[in-house]
Amino acid sequence: MPKIADRYLKIDPWKIVEEGFHADRSQVSESIFSLGNEFMGSRGSFDEGFSGQTLIGNYLNGVYEEAPIHHPNTYKGISTRHTFMVNSLNWFDTQISCDGEILDLAVSRHWNFLRELDLKTGIVTRSFVWGTQSGKEIKLTFRRFLSMDAPSLACQRIELESLKGAAVAEVRFGLDFNPPHVFAGKSPWVERKAEANALTAILGETENTRQFAFSAFAVDEAAAFETVSGEKRIGRKTVVELAEGEARTFTKRIANIAVKKTELDVSSLWKTCMEQAGNMLDVSYDDALAAHTAYWSDVWKTQDIVIEGDDEQQQGIRYCIFQLHQTYHGVDAANNVGAKGLTGEAYSGHTFWDTETYCLPFYLFNNPKAARNLLEYRYHTLPQALDWSKLQDCTGAAYPMSTIDGTESCGVWWHGNLEIHVSAAVAYGIWHYMKICDDAEFLFSKGVEMLIEISRFYASRGNWSPHGEFGFYGVMGPDEFHTFVNNNTYTNVIARKTFEWTQDAIERMATEAPDAYAVLVEKLNFQISEKEAWEKMASAMKIPMNLETGVYEQHDGYFELPHLDINSIPVEDFPLYGSWSLPRIYRYDMIKQPDVLLLQLFFSADYSLESKKVNYEYYEPRCIHESSLSPSVHSILAAEIGNQDDAVKFSLFATRLDLDNYNRNTSEGLHTTSIAAAWMNIVCGFGGMRTDGELLAFRPTIPPAWKGYSFSVTHLGAIVKVSVAAGRATFEVVHGDPLTLNINGAAEEICAEAKSFSLGE
Amino acid sequence: MPKIADRYLKIDPWKIVEEGFHADRSQVSESIFSLGNEFMGSRGSFDEGFSGQTLIGNYLNGVYEEAPIHHPNTYKGISTRHTFMVNSLNWFDTQISCDGEILDLAVSRHWNFLRELDLKTGIVTRSFVWGTQSGKEIKLTFRRFLSMDAPSLACQRIELESLKGAAVAEVRFGLDFNPPHVFAGKSPWVERKAEANALTAILGETENTRQFAFSAFAVDEAAAFETVSGEKRIGRKTVVELAEGEARTFTKRIANIAVKKTELDVSSLWKTCMEQAGNMLDVSYDDALAAHTAYWSDVWKTQDIVIEGDDEQQQGIRYCIFQLHQTYHGVDAANNVGAKGLTGEAYSGHTFWDTETYCLPFYLFNNPKAARNLLEYRYHTLPQALDWSKLQDCTGAAYPMSTIDGTESCGVWWHGNLEIHVSAAVAYGIWHYMKICDDAEFLFSKGVEMLIEISRFYASRGNWSPHGEFGFYGVMGPDEFHTFVNNNTYTNVIARKTFEWTQDAIERMATEAPDAYAVLVEKLNFQISEKEAWEKMASAMKIPMNLETGVYEQHDGYFELPHLDINSIPVEDFPLYGSWSLPRIYRYDMIKQPDVLLLQLFFSADYSLESKKVNYEYYEPRCIHESSLSPSVHSILAAEIGNQDDAVKFSLFATRLDLDNYNRNTSEGLHTTSIAAAWMNIVCGFGGMRTDGELLAFRPTIPPAWKGYSFSVTHLGAIVKVSVAAGRATFEVVHGDPLTLNINGAAEEICAEAKSFSLGE
Repeated sequence: MPKIADRYLKIDPWKIVEEGFHADRSQVSESIFSLGNEFMGSRGSFDEGFSGQTLIGNYLNGVYEEAPIHHPNTYKGISTRHTFMVNSLNWFDTQISCDGEILDLAVSRHWNFLRELDLKTGIVTRSFVWGTQSGKEIKLTFRRFLSMDAPSLACQRIELESLKGAAVAEVRFGLDFNPPHVFAGKSPWVERKAEANALTAILGETENTRQFAFSAFAVDEAAAFETVSGEKRIGRKTVVELAEGEARTFTKRIANIAVKKTELDVSSLWKTCMEQAGNMLDVSYDDALAAHTAYWSDVWKTQDIVIEGDDEQQQGIRYCIFQLHQTYHGVDAANNVGAKGLTGEAYSGHTFWDTETYCLPFYLFNNPKAARNLLEYRYHTLPQALDWSKLQDCTGAAYPMSTIDGTESCGVWWHGNLEIHVSAAVAYGIWHYMKICDDAEFLFSKGVEMLIEISRFYASRGNWSPHGEFGFYGVMGPDEFHTFVNNNTYTNVIARKTFEWTQDAIERMATEAPDAYAVLVEKLNFQISEKEAWEKMASAMKIPMNLETGVYEQHDGYFELPHLDINSIPVEDFPLYGSWSLPRIYRYDMIKQPDVLLLQLFFSADYSLESKKVNYEYYEPRCIHESSLSPSVHSILAAEIGNQDDAVKFSLFATRLDLDNYNRNTSEGLHTTSIAAAWMNIVCGFGGMRTDGELLAFRPTIPPAWKGYSFSVTHLGAIVKVSVAAGRATFEVVHGDPLTLNINGAAEEICAEAKSFSLGE
Repeated sequence: MPKIADRYLKIDPWKIVEEGFHADRSQVSESIFSLGNEFMGSRGSFDEGFSGQTLIGNYLNGVYEEAPIHHPNTYKGISTRHTFMVNSLNWFDTQISCDGEILDLAVSRHWNFLRELDLKTGIVTRSFVWGTQSGKEIKLTFRRFLSMDAPSLACQRIELESLKGAAVAEVRFGLDFNPPHVFAGKSPWVERKAEANALTAILGETENTRQFAFSAFAVDEAAAFETVSGEKRIGRKTVVELAEGEARTFTKRIANIAVKKTELDVSSLWKTCMEQAGNMLDVSYDDALAAHTAYWSDVWKTQDIVIEGDDEQQQGIRYCIFQLHQTYHGVDAANNVGAKGLTGEAYSGHTFWDTETYCLPFYLFNNPKAARNLLEYRYHTLPQALDWSKLQDCTGAAYPMSTIDGTESCGVWWHGNLEIHVSAAVAYGIWHYMKICDDAEFLFSKGVEMLIEISRFYASRGNWSPHGEFGFYGVMGPDEFHTFVNNNTYTNVIARKTFEWTQDAIERMATEAPDAYAVLVEKLNFQISEKEAWEKMASAMKIPMNLETGVYEQHDGYFELPHLDINSIPVEDFPLYGSWSLPRIYRYDMIKQPDVLLLQLFFSADYSLESKKVNYEYYEPRCIHESSLSPSVHSILAAEIGNQDDAVKFSLFATRLDLDNYNRNTSEGLHTTSIAAAWMNIVCGFGGMRTDGELLAFRPTIPPAWKGYSFSVTHLGAIVKVSVAAGRATFEVVHGDPLTLNINGAAEEICAEAKSFSLGE
């Protein structure tokens, strides 16, 4: 795996620390020091502006623009509308000047730069000393947070302290719709109204989707302010006189409102927003801070992963947990998890199958309400999935590869149309949620309906081979290095599972909620013949495999592909998409990520340890991990088959992917969904947790270099803490009723009293 | 084959006749009554304009514009520049008015409409009576031709005869750059200069490619003319007074000049063009007409195909021969054959592998100089082919799928990048040319170089399977309903042939022209190790086949694809590209055109009759002929295996594809390359001609409904006439030395004295 760390941040178990400003990595830091609270996100751009490399990015979850997709040729069934989460306004917009010099770390003389993200509290602090051209020395300290308690609230505190000389500084606080959406090449916003009275406020509207963003702020400092305004921006400025040694602090509280759909005219909308903002800002900075930090304190109480003896991994995994919460914690079922969260424009803010496949487990075991909301999102977008299936000449529901609003937004049709495993990922999510949280109300009100529609899609998209096997032709599996293949093993297996899950769910509903079931059958015009057909398809599903070696064939003909020694590829050729022509990438046995291993992780009980070994050993040397989701899966399987070297090597990449900028593209935003896989990497990898058996199962191991580690999982209403150290694993229920787990292969009753087991061989 | 004729033109062995104006088919007629002379082409739009459905199209061969190809995502190795033959100026631009009413057949009262294309002379005549609103009756007769003798020369003759009343008519003759290029949505031309003195002339320049079109005309009529001009147009008008019964004739001679590249400034260029045009127009209409008709007279003397007892086929095949000559007859090696010839915008005037595969045989056997020029075109564009290969991480020469100037212009990358059989088509063309014309000078000066570079491409694009077989992975064969397949049989076989042809050509050159060979080896840095590698690749080439049934497998895994009964597809679903989603089209065993049958036609001697039978019977029911090239191939093979019903059925479609508008898209232009396949259909189908054996071979048959038929072929400098009737086939050399042919399986010396053979069983 030709991935090399580019580390410049300090290792610390609870903080991300940048000592001295790394101007050459300014955009990487902007991503890493991103803040978010699901409703909104802000990259760590400098409040005061920066004339060096910067991407001033502030996002409101689900606020998007649209544009036509231009294909060289149009074909039926292909998506023609691109949607993208837009860069919204810069609510941290600030300008500071002294003696006519505008502060700008790209040119201003400065020292003692220190930036810290405190994972315990979710606050970013940045300080440095500015040596002005006029000979003054001013220490500046910036603090910001996006409230996890009140999602609309952003707070910024700026302290100026004159260290040398009496300084006269001008400080401007603004709201600015001008930062461009870089991929679109412009700001997508039209200013509708701006005003500076008790509150300074602005309202913008997107050009095509007609969505609104409103922002208002108040500054606590009693100084006299003057209004400053320009195109698509408004703000206030004041002048502050500091004697040597004197300090002054400004506190800006910002209320952001996203209006995704409204019938109101601009003046009514303005009035409504101003009232809401007034209420939101009716809180002191200190109270807001206290509520925000209390949220984080609760998180770490039950969801922390502690690693003793490996501060790199410790910092990495806490950063992952922190970013997952920032991205999504179930505030609103209209939100989902973008591939880059709320930290950049890449992947257009789109949600992928990553949500159910890699992110959902984190929420299932930490925040079941958030897990349910992720599935509710899919239910709300079921109409779009029905349409998308129909456009492809199929029935039922085909969930989109890449979406904000539930419609398919993937311009690359051979991904958008052929990666049909996405719908099964939704089914997998429903099954997984039921397995861990057992929420019959959800299943009967929404889950069964989704499962039936997804099964209908697969039944209509699949075909019978001349030999009487059922399968899917012309597909692309999760491994995107092979397009237009037949009988992709991953797709076939998970579609078969989908048929089975659907049957099970239908039977349960028919038994437990017969009235509701009858209503649903009528609503969907569901036929018994469909159910029977699915049974036949499931049992006749083709699963390609070499019976001699026990290796599953990734798709029909994969074993006949030319072999490529991936170690022969020069490091400078990576990422291959940039340096290899597309047909060259696609024609070998080289894979981007491991389809078969993914199955052996999700459905662990279906495969013997021997099968996992031979498949790992076959596919690992063929995988170049050009998907950032790939290493975790390898690490987890490696741990299971006893290959601790690989397990540790791959896990480090997963937990520190962005902190060490392994893929050299952290500047574009964080790999949010890979971050979720990092959580799985610890809990399922070293913790050996598996979810597909009768009981939730654990088979803990420990990397040689670690002294110990612990994590907690929520399951069926209880919270179980697992601690591993000194050759033993200890289980205790820290909240809720006792429950039975499968530990090292045996059913064990776990209760409040800690129970200890020796680690497997 | 769900293809149904839409016939509205009269059947006539030598003419295309439209009796009564078919306004609802106006654009179909525009295509069918197209004229061309390789240098230029004009659709049969009405001289006087038409406010109904019309595509005023006038083309100068190889004059093109360019535009970027917008891909939703860019990948290395994909074409990003689109080129397209532009609609040039309307040199037949005319306006006729009488008593203030402008003649327009969409609204003007008219009767006795008759339009005829005389295939014997290449002249289109159109006449009708116009009943003006003012009560006059004027008979109008339009005549036009594009000189086959002097390619720059177009002639138009208009006769006005007053049948009732004394008429005062205004006649305007113009040159007009305004007709839009419909796909581009505008005229691509910028007017550079226009002037009306002795000659009326105009010069236009394309916006991006900076190519020039110049046109000048003279009108013979002695009347006083007045200049009329407008944006991008210029012309002259006159008023003619006709007493009842009086007739007047205007003759417009037009000289067109295409300047594809120049260093001259506009005023120098204008001067040069005016001089050239002056010389060109220094010819009388009658002399020009005589030279033009003499050309056609020569053509029909030696190249006619006579069919007795089937006027539909007779008219169809003559129309095909006529259109082939109009499109291309070897005037300039910079020209090639566009998929629509010079008759419309569709396919952007691009040249495809159709040239070598379907068109070249016609020229090989009728016009060897033209055949050579088609190959010269590929030699001139070798540098572009070398670049295109490199962009795809390969060596050698990869010829483009779709091109005007030798660069790849196919925006649909899975066609442009994956249909790698195109390069082998060039090699096939060279081999075929040598086989029929044996031109060692060409082979040694250009052919071997091209063959080496093409073999280099295949050697670098191919791969070794884990089982030691060589093949091509991630390709699309001629059958475009299966993309990204491995070991497409057509591609593998023709690449193996290419390696073999290259070896043979190298050996011949080394023996016969050792000095030139040494120079070439040095120029290309050609290594003996390359030659050895190609030998290995050729002999290890994988050719998928079911040994039990003898059916070749179109590509790896084709036999495992879901079967689709193509007869179950509703007729209204055709063409499928319009009504089926792309992944639905691609995932069955349904094919668009027959890869395997094509091989069995080209390399007939390699396959037994039994093999041809089983493969025809397997693939024919799976083929929907969505390529217009497909039916001919079926017809030829059907004739060979004795399936006369299919042979006749498919041949009718081939010869009358446009006359009967089988594909309902003749309005976009003629299917020029299919027209070439129609020639093969008669000669190779019923004539049973095969070119791949030691001797040129014939095995004539005759459709039951035909009384007789005859055709001629040029071979090794001789012209052989083949006549079939009354159960016998007669062969005679009508020009040149005696030669040996393989007739019905036996070598036979054929000379000037006719020799007769009974037809095979």
